[in-house]
Amino acid sequence: MARWEPNAQTRLQQAAMELFRERGFDGTSVAEIAERAGLTERTFFRHFADKREVLFVGGDWVTTDLRAGIADAPADATPLEVAEAAFSRLADAFEERREFSRTRHAVIDANPELMERERRKLALLADSVADGLRERGVDETRARLASEVGMAVFRTAYTRWATSSDGRTARAYLREAFAQAKAL
Amino acid sequence: MARWEPNAQTRLQQAAMELFRERGFDGTSVAEIAERAGLTERTFFRHFADKREVLFVGGDWVTTDLRAGIADAPADATPLEVAEAAFSRLADAFEERREFSRTRHAVIDANPELMERERRKLALLADSVADGLRERGVDETRARLASEVGMAVFRTAYTRWATSSDGRTARAYLREAFAQAKAL
Repeated sequence: MARWEPNAQTRLQQAAMELFRERGFDGTSVAEIAERAGLTERTFFRHFADKREVLFVGGDWVTTDLRAGIADAPADATPLEVAEAAFSRLADAFEERREFSRTRHAVIDANPELMERERRKLALLADSVADGLRERGVDETRARLASEVGMAVFRTAYTRWATSSDGRTARAYLREAFAQAKAL
Repeated sequence: MARWEPNAQTRLQQAAMELFRERGFDGTSVAEIAERAGLTERTFFRHFADKREVLFVGGDWVTTDLRAGIADAPADATPLEVAEAAFSRLADAFEERREFSRTRHAVIDANPELMERERRKLALLADSVADGLRERGVDETRARLASEVGMAVFRTAYTRWATSSDGRTARAYLREAFAQAKAL
C-alpha cells in the first residue's frame, strides 16, 4: 500500500545523485534509486516521470525566482544590472543545494543528451529574463542583449563554481564574473 | 548515368530553400528538392547525407573563418574586441549568402529539432573562439567570458538581421549590438 513518505522527493534525489556519482547516469536504474532511498519504484514515479526528471524537476520556481530578482532591482538599475539581480537569485538557489547542484552539473556535463536539455532550459530562463526587462520598459533589443549576455556570464560563473574547490559561494563567482565581463 | 554537375550543391540548396519556404521543412522531400534543381536524388545524396544537411553543411569553414578573425585582431585588442573581430567574420559569411541565410534562419526558427542543432553548432563556435583567445594568452575565465558574451551579442544581432527589412548588413547589426552591449 502506498503511503505518504516524508521528504520522499529529496530522499530520491539524494539517492539518485549518489548512484549517478558511483555508476554514472546511464548505469543507474530507477529500481536502484528507489532501493537506495528505501522507497518503492511506485513512489519514485509519483514524484518523477522518468530518471532524467530527477535532474530537471522543479524548474518553475526558478522562473519565479528570476522574476522576483527583476522586480526587486532598483528602478534606476541598468538592464545588465537587472539581469545580474535576476541571475543572482539563480546562483543563490544553486548554492542552497550546493552538493546536489555540483553533482548535478557533473552528471549533466558528462552526458550530451542531458546537456542539450540543460541548454534548452537555460535558453528558456534567458527568455524569461528578457520578458521581465521588457515589462520594465526596456526596448526589445536591449532586453534581449542584457538577458543573453547575463546568461552567458551566469553560465561561465556557474561552471567555474560547480568545479571549484575553494568553498566560495555561487554568488561570489557570479559577482566576480559580472565584474570581469564589464572590464572585458 | 551520374555525371559531374556544375554548382550542384548550390543549386540543390537554392531549390531546397524555395521549397522550405513554400511547403515548410517537414513538407518537403528530397525527391522534390532534386526535381526542382533539375538533378537526381542520387546527386543530392552525393552532396548531403540527408535533408537537414542542406541547412548545416559546410560548418568547417566557419571555424576557419572565426580563427582567421582572431588571428587578424590587433595585438592590443581586448578579449571582447577579439571576439567581436571573430564574430564579424561570421556575420560577413552570412551576409555573403544573404537570402539563403535569412531563409535558413526562418526555417530553423520554426522547427525545434533544427533549433537544437543550431544551438549546439553555435556552442561549438563559441568554444572555438575561446580556444583562439587562450592561444593569444587570455586566461581561461576571461577567454570563456569573452567568447560566451560575444556569442550572446552575435545571436541577438543575427536574429535581428535575419528578420529585418531595412537592407542593413549583418556586420552593421553586429557592430550596433556590440556597441549597445558595451553601453548596457
